[in-house]
Amino acid sequence: MKSDIRRLSSDAPDFDAQIAALQAPMEVIDPGLVTTVSEIIGRIRERGDAAIIELTQSLDDHAVTDMSDLIFDKQRLSEFEQRISDAERSALKTAAARIERYHQQQLIQDWSIEDEYGSRLGQRILAMSSAGLYVPGGKASYPSSVLMNAIPAKVAGVPDVTMVAPTPGGKLNPLVMAAASMAGVDRVVTIGGAQAVAALAYGTESIKAVDKIVGPGNRFVAEAKRQVFGKVGIDMIAGPSEIFVIADGSVDPKWIALDLMSQAEHDEVAQAVCISPNDAYLDAVAEAIDALLPTMPRRSVIEASLKNRGALIVVEDLERAARLSNLFAPEHLELAVRDADQLLPHITHAGAIFLGAYSSESLGDYCVGTNHVLPTSGAARFSSPLGVYDFQTRTSIIDVNSQGAKALAEVAGTIADGESLAAHAMAARIRVEDPN
Amino acid sequence: MKSDIRRLSSDAPDFDAQIAALQAPMEVIDPGLVTTVSEIIGRIRERGDAAIIELTQSLDDHAVTDMSDLIFDKQRLSEFEQRISDAERSALKTAAARIERYHQQQLIQDWSIEDEYGSRLGQRILAMSSAGLYVPGGKASYPSSVLMNAIPAKVAGVPDVTMVAPTPGGKLNPLVMAAASMAGVDRVVTIGGAQAVAALAYGTESIKAVDKIVGPGNRFVAEAKRQVFGKVGIDMIAGPSEIFVIADGSVDPKWIALDLMSQAEHDEVAQAVCISPNDAYLDAVAEAIDALLPTMPRRSVIEASLKNRGALIVVEDLERAARLSNLFAPEHLELAVRDADQLLPHITHAGAIFLGAYSSESLGDYCVGTNHVLPTSGAARFSSPLGVYDFQTRTSIIDVNSQGAKALAEVAGTIADGESLAAHAMAARIRVEDPN
Repeated sequence: MKSDIRRLSSDAPDFDAQIAALQAPMEVIDPGLVTTVSEIIGRIRERGDAAIIELTQSLDDHAVTDMSDLIFDKQRLSEFEQRISDAERSALKTAAARIERYHQQQLIQDWSIEDEYGSRLGQRILAMSSAGLYVPGGKASYPSSVLMNAIPAKVAGVPDVTMVAPTPGGKLNPLVMAAASMAGVDRVVTIGGAQAVAALAYGTESIKAVDKIVGPGNRFVAEAKRQVFGKVGIDMIAGPSEIFVIADGSVDPKWIALDLMSQAEHDEVAQAVCISPNDAYLDAVAEAIDALLPTMPRRSVIEASLKNRGALIVVEDLERAARLSNLFAPEHLELAVRDADQLLPHITHAGAIFLGAYSSESLGDYCVGTNHVLPTSGAARFSSPLGVYDFQTRTSIIDVNSQGAKALAEVAGTIADGESLAAHAMAARIRVEDPN
Repeated sequence: MKSDIRRLSSDAPDFDAQIAALQAPMEVIDPGLVTTVSEIIGRIRERGDAAIIELTQSLDDHAVTDMSDLIFDKQRLSEFEQRISDAERSALKTAAARIERYHQQQLIQDWSIEDEYGSRLGQRILAMSSAGLYVPGGKASYPSSVLMNAIPAKVAGVPDVTMVAPTPGGKLNPLVMAAASMAGVDRVVTIGGAQAVAALAYGTESIKAVDKIVGPGNRFVAEAKRQVFGKVGIDMIAGPSEIFVIADGSVDPKWIALDLMSQAEHDEVAQAVCISPNDAYLDAVAEAIDALLPTMPRRSVIEASLKNRGALIVVEDLERAARLSNLFAPEHLELAVRDADQLLPHITHAGAIFLGAYSSESLGDYCVGTNHVLPTSGAARFSSPLGVYDFQTRTSIIDVNSQGAKALAEVAGTIADGESLAAHAMAARIRVEDPN
């Protein structure tokens, strides 16, 4: 069996065009989708729980009649911890503890400075009051994603975390429910789609509105998040997952083949790319893929993904490989090279960088401690891994004394005059002219 | 002259309904706006500069024929510093220096920890490569906003900052252009609207695409930012400005009247609210507003704003005032009380908190050093003042050694098995079973 992963060379005259074709297709607004989602949101805002039940019956094929069938509190959730195997429970607990320890480092802290007049200026940090987590249903319903979304919120100190997860046909995933319990989620509502996003944003009789919604979903969920942005906070809009590997030939090609395939098995439009100055090594990676493919339960997904968006690319040297990676700002980047620390400074934006032979993406996906919710489709140019900071807010603190107000009154007054805002100018100047 | 600012009391039986009526109206998606903006973005993506020139001619009434008429590089910008008065230049320089000093404190730093196996886990921080600043035209074209948007980007270390600002009729504002020069903006393009957002997001022949777009604008700009989100980063969608003042009666009512009016003069839908346990003090504030109104150049805007959305609210005590403020999570909150530090812990979310009699919002708007781009319409529940952190990205760094890979292989493998992701499981386990 041979995979159809493409082979590219930076020597080729049409190399730039081939690379452009590998980049994520640009999204366009779909007016039909905008309207459909807007109507669903409108139904939830107008009719609350009744609309949730109707939509869950019709869209999720789930014969519920009462909201209490859909809401699992902490007590009901904790029961699922006993419905999974000891090995699974132990693995999830180890992963959760490591994720928590890593994320503790991300807590941002209050700070302040004193200026030359003795005025105090700074920022105060608070946890958000509530958060909603969207966990996809069906084939992408992962307990690891529950840990990755919920733990940062809990480390931040968010007191009230609601998770939603569609359950088509009413089938619960015990691993997902157990992970929610372990991560400290306050309740799970087994609903999904745009209706779940609307319920989290606006609230219903039974579901409390939250301050921020995070987590990936299908295009209805993504569009719903876009539409409720402003009423609540949202995280980035997630695209297909990607891995780029820069390899010098020093790492077992079978390991790299598995890393590429573990990305490819997610999704037919996931992307797996290996870049190397060593053409013979890329041959070995291709052979390892071909040898491993027949053993893969998700073989057809892997084949489709490698054919659609995969590539093995030979370039002149590692620096060129780094520049090529920088062009994509990939979600995951493995530096499968002898001296990864030496190559690291050549890498600009990426979601997560895995250094050396032993840092497989798979460890990052589950248990090393870092977050697996990462910017996709080049969004690492402007956004960051999901973290504790996504659940904390900053407030500016301004404590000016009379000396400071006097020193700054004319500065503020002059600029306000330039902006034709007379009340602003007077508010600054009166504190000098007509003291308390 | 008497203002029509409403008087409310927490004793009133319909107080909750009156408060609900004061909250920001919820936005609904306007399908017509979505389509119009989507078409403008499509024109820019397809025809680039030619579409920019057409739209700037037709929408901005600006008779340009060539892109070079619209682009001001650093050299051309610096000339505007000589076209403003010495007092204006000095005031902007003082403000810029103070804003820069405050924002220096916000730089986030690399960090890493070592786990029990000697693996290194952390985050690397980089500045974004480029940013776009949208500065509104017409009545809301403010040099202070240029400083507030550009300085954090430059403190973060963004090497390439493009500012766009519509210039209806081709009329430049020398203060805005001079502020751009002082803040280190790399170029100003005098275009606006959805077409400017599209040009920054997708690039044209003459305008480089950027990684993130920040800054407020009208509803076309807001909708365009929503549509390009994902291709580029965006900041929050700005709503009307708000000030809440909690007053115990210890601060000159004229000062508070001016603080309320300085918010009201921005916009007919801006909101100015004063909450106090002291009814007689609220009378004095109302009298001060009435006395000052005739002196205000923007009197009609102030009157409309106070009538539409303003309020003087009497409550039983300062803690109730704090709870009321928390319900709104206002953009600006003044604690005009004798002991502001004592009241501060009762305040949860707000954009910026001004402590004591001398901390007027006006100083924060211009020159105290904090940022005046703040979350509006309750968004302080989930977002933060614009800052240096908005122009930095975090990348996860994962450097696992062979011991760590061995210790974690079974944890990752077990969870991957539970998710039916065989390649993930094998990628973790093979590094133990079949070592390099």
